[in-house]
Amino acid sequence: MAAIDGNGTGFGHNGQNGVVQPLLTDLYQITMAYAYWKSGKTEEHAVFNLFFRKNPFHGEFTIFAGLEECLKLLQSFRYSASDVSYLRSVMPASVEPEFFEFLGKLTAEDITLHALDEGEVAFPRVPLLIVEGPLIVCQLLETTLLTLVNFASLMATNAARYRMAAGKDIRLLEFGLRRAQGPDGGLSASKYAYMGGFDGTSNVLAGKLFNIPVSGTHAHSYVTAFSGLDELHTKSMPPRGGGEPVDLQERALCWREKLASAIFNVLPEEASSGEFAAFLSFAMAFPNGFLALIDTYDVCRSGLLNFCAVALALHELGYRALGIRIDSGDLAFLSHMAREKFESIAKEYDMPWFAELTIVASNDINEETIISLNEQEHSINCFGIGTHLVTCQRQPALGCVYKMVDINGRPRMKLSQEVEKVNIPGRSACYRLFGKDGSALIDLITRYEEPVPSSSGVTKTLCRHPFQEKMRTYVSPSKVTNLHRTFWKDSQLQLPMPTLFEIRQKVQSSLQSLRKDIKRNLNPTPYKVSVSVEMYKFLHEMWLENAPIGELV
Amino acid sequence: MAAIDGNGTGFGHNGQNGVVQPLLTDLYQITMAYAYWKSGKTEEHAVFNLFFRKNPFHGEFTIFAGLEECLKLLQSFRYSASDVSYLRSVMPASVEPEFFEFLGKLTAEDITLHALDEGEVAFPRVPLLIVEGPLIVCQLLETTLLTLVNFASLMATNAARYRMAAGKDIRLLEFGLRRAQGPDGGLSASKYAYMGGFDGTSNVLAGKLFNIPVSGTHAHSYVTAFSGLDELHTKSMPPRGGGEPVDLQERALCWREKLASAIFNVLPEEASSGEFAAFLSFAMAFPNGFLALIDTYDVCRSGLLNFCAVALALHELGYRALGIRIDSGDLAFLSHMAREKFESIAKEYDMPWFAELTIVASNDINEETIISLNEQEHSINCFGIGTHLVTCQRQPALGCVYKMVDINGRPRMKLSQEVEKVNIPGRSACYRLFGKDGSALIDLITRYEEPVPSSSGVTKTLCRHPFQEKMRTYVSPSKVTNLHRTFWKDSQLQLPMPTLFEIRQKVQSSLQSLRKDIKRNLNPTPYKVSVSVEMYKFLHEMWLENAPIGELV
Repeated sequence: MAAIDGNGTGFGHNGQNGVVQPLLTDLYQITMAYAYWKSGKTEEHAVFNLFFRKNPFHGEFTIFAGLEECLKLLQSFRYSASDVSYLRSVMPASVEPEFFEFLGKLTAEDITLHALDEGEVAFPRVPLLIVEGPLIVCQLLETTLLTLVNFASLMATNAARYRMAAGKDIRLLEFGLRRAQGPDGGLSASKYAYMGGFDGTSNVLAGKLFNIPVSGTHAHSYVTAFSGLDELHTKSMPPRGGGEPVDLQERALCWREKLASAIFNVLPEEASSGEFAAFLSFAMAFPNGFLALIDTYDVCRSGLLNFCAVALALHELGYRALGIRIDSGDLAFLSHMAREKFESIAKEYDMPWFAELTIVASNDINEETIISLNEQEHSINCFGIGTHLVTCQRQPALGCVYKMVDINGRPRMKLSQEVEKVNIPGRSACYRLFGKDGSALIDLITRYEEPVPSSSGVTKTLCRHPFQEKMRTYVSPSKVTNLHRTFWKDSQLQLPMPTLFEIRQKVQSSLQSLRKDIKRNLNPTPYKVSVSVEMYKFLHEMWLENAPIGELV
Repeated sequence: MAAIDGNGTGFGHNGQNGVVQPLLTDLYQITMAYAYWKSGKTEEHAVFNLFFRKNPFHGEFTIFAGLEECLKLLQSFRYSASDVSYLRSVMPASVEPEFFEFLGKLTAEDITLHALDEGEVAFPRVPLLIVEGPLIVCQLLETTLLTLVNFASLMATNAARYRMAAGKDIRLLEFGLRRAQGPDGGLSASKYAYMGGFDGTSNVLAGKLFNIPVSGTHAHSYVTAFSGLDELHTKSMPPRGGGEPVDLQERALCWREKLASAIFNVLPEEASSGEFAAFLSFAMAFPNGFLALIDTYDVCRSGLLNFCAVALALHELGYRALGIRIDSGDLAFLSHMAREKFESIAKEYDMPWFAELTIVASNDINEETIISLNEQEHSINCFGIGTHLVTCQRQPALGCVYKMVDINGRPRMKLSQEVEKVNIPGRSACYRLFGKDGSALIDLITRYEEPVPSSSGVTKTLCRHPFQEKMRTYVSPSKVTNLHRTFWKDSQLQLPMPTLFEIRQKVQSSLQSLRKDIKRNLNPTPYKVSVSVEMYKFLHEMWLENAPIGELV
């Protein structure tokens, strides 16, 4: 059971969401546990692989995420007394009382967990997790592990795709909490968006819990809360260097007058005075961080002019504004228009820094919008991205599955009429084979006992497609890495846990090792996942052995 | 701050998810609060409407959900000392210390919340929530309220659509936890799927927390865990009526021999003996609840035969099996085939109940699959639905927004070049007008001060489209209901909270009041949301007043 602290975060001492607990599972795990227990299978040793069958978002790669949460689950795995009594109330009366005693004592201490590094790029059929241990415990972990890995990996992958689309010089902020799938959907989204390559989030709780930079200024409602200048409580503030308060409002009015004719070619009265008051008050609250949302009334005729007037008044007092945010309309056009005005002002008043003001865009942006904005060219420095990012609109679920591959040393497979659904049986070893230039060439799944493929750069290894007989290739890798490491064994973490920031860097370095054509948005090249010759033989023999032969009648 | 209990559920004493707390918000709410505070707007009285602009899933209705969680938030709304110190660390150093003291004392005691009943059908632009009170508190509630309403309503609507597609005689079970968007995404999904019309969930924690019926039997891994009959720990069990244990395995083997030739026309050896052992052990664990997953190897040549043999053996001992689950393949065909075999057996061995065994289907089912299965006809009694249901694959987010409509008695509106984004300003009253036959005719939004429309059945009320001048209609309703009730005022719940089960019934009765053409899946008729003549005038005058006049140059 996740320990619950009293610090008001709703999170245990190990930073784990209180919702994550052994009872966050499907009932059939418990019914199966009972049937295993009744059948005397308590001591059997099982191996389960957790993997997916298809990369999300029509892409050809996935970022593996969620490992830290899985390890926290293992650390704290125990049914509470209240869990057990609830289970007693929903299971048939015929279930033997000794089973509930057995349940109440279960822990994950005999479990061994091998996994990819969190943040590693992953591909179909290569296990993200390999879970070994007592059959019943392995089985009871299924749903919770899937829940922790599925959305985390989907979200990190989505974020990494946005990062690639935007390029490395654009700031990306996650703004999705209000549209996320439940409170924790939002919290997970903030965490894994940051892991996948975002720079920050608007989500304050995520900032507090995961030490992610938080960011945000104001909404349209702040602007509509002001009707005119008479509402301003105070009009003056001290200059940055100290001294007597200066009338900011007067300076800004003066600038508005000037800019309206010199730069904007409008009448100053066209600009909303409520908006003007709102910007002034916001600038007085955050003189070193003034960033204004400029599309409440009209970007061209009101918001931008009001912003520039206030920014220039602030400048007279020694402060530099940060920039603007645009939340509607044609983002390419509006950002260009704003940049032009900034540049004209910079030139006219000899203030080079004004040309470099930040332009944030935040209107219903997705991966495709970013790609299209890049094609049109734009003057945006930062995207604030919500709905599409956090709900993974293009594909809201990753299909990870958890399959038993071995029990008591006997390899197992689940057959299926659909070839892609057949799993690779037995405990396997998985390698990534790299070429001379350091790029990943292919993943190779072998039987566990096979030797590690040679990384001499000259010895050929034959890599076969797991199901298509004719598809095979020789590879002479210069580097070979074992994809799995043992993270949990003998009730202990076996490796130090990297920080979220380190995992975030791992995502980028791992993506770096993939060829560009595998990562591109349109028609990417599939990365190959192969099996060894021995594994191919083993897999197909086992398949023939197990598949019933039909009879046409 | 949500109180955290020590009962190991991760939920506060009021059953609230520990993740739901005031800090689960966007940073800009805090920066705005500071700017409001600095501007002396602390005491201003605001009204905010929470509403959506478009029904989800290409449909024409939405189920409002999430109210209970919103009320719990209001009850416990308070920043903890650790929240305040975190905020201090992320806000600019220039923020005055008194503001943090102010924040630390804030509560929702001066907030008034009007809302639709939870479970009510709702339509675009009609506020789901109307939040009144101190500007700063109203603003600070925005993101959390949106997070609580958006996914809850989307999910309840999705579930209600599945229920309508399936009809009322089919059992619907939610099986989505493993694919949900984060742990609490799964928990929310289970709760609101039940609210929307599902009969139960596989999610044990949801069962425990929300008192939802839980359901589940076994997975493919249970079947693959057995290789053959020699693995069975015990082969015998006592009959239902008591007495000496009987050899169930022997009886089942005997039945399998018999059925293979008499009913299935296959060789008994074709059926997997591992699966047979798995079914026997499961039947011995749950003799009164035997339901078997029959597609691990082959439905026709293995699973169904093995199931029937075990079910008939159980019958000899006085137990009745429940049925089967199919998780792959052509569900219409396989369910018919299974039903035919059940009927043949019922007839052959004079056991009418055998014809009525339950058939559960659970392979990647969505609303369209159900509609298509209905068209093909099928013999399924129960659907187990996961991914598509819980992630709302067809549209994973509802676009609820939260707009200020009044401040200190001055109506406000946010303009937009997109007409649909213009909000209806001012505190409004919203009515549903019903016809003689009890069906809902139209929703009407009036100014708050206007009289309630007559429900005499003869007096005509003119209802206007909010934006399109020519679209208007007379309505002579026989019943008029005020859509909003005050749920929270003066620090108190104003109305008793219904149970989840009662809300679930409300969903069905509320849907009952809608004409069928509004609810149909394909090209449904839009339900009209109108404004009164006075509101129309008010809205358009205000719009003209606020919109800047451009100049073509």
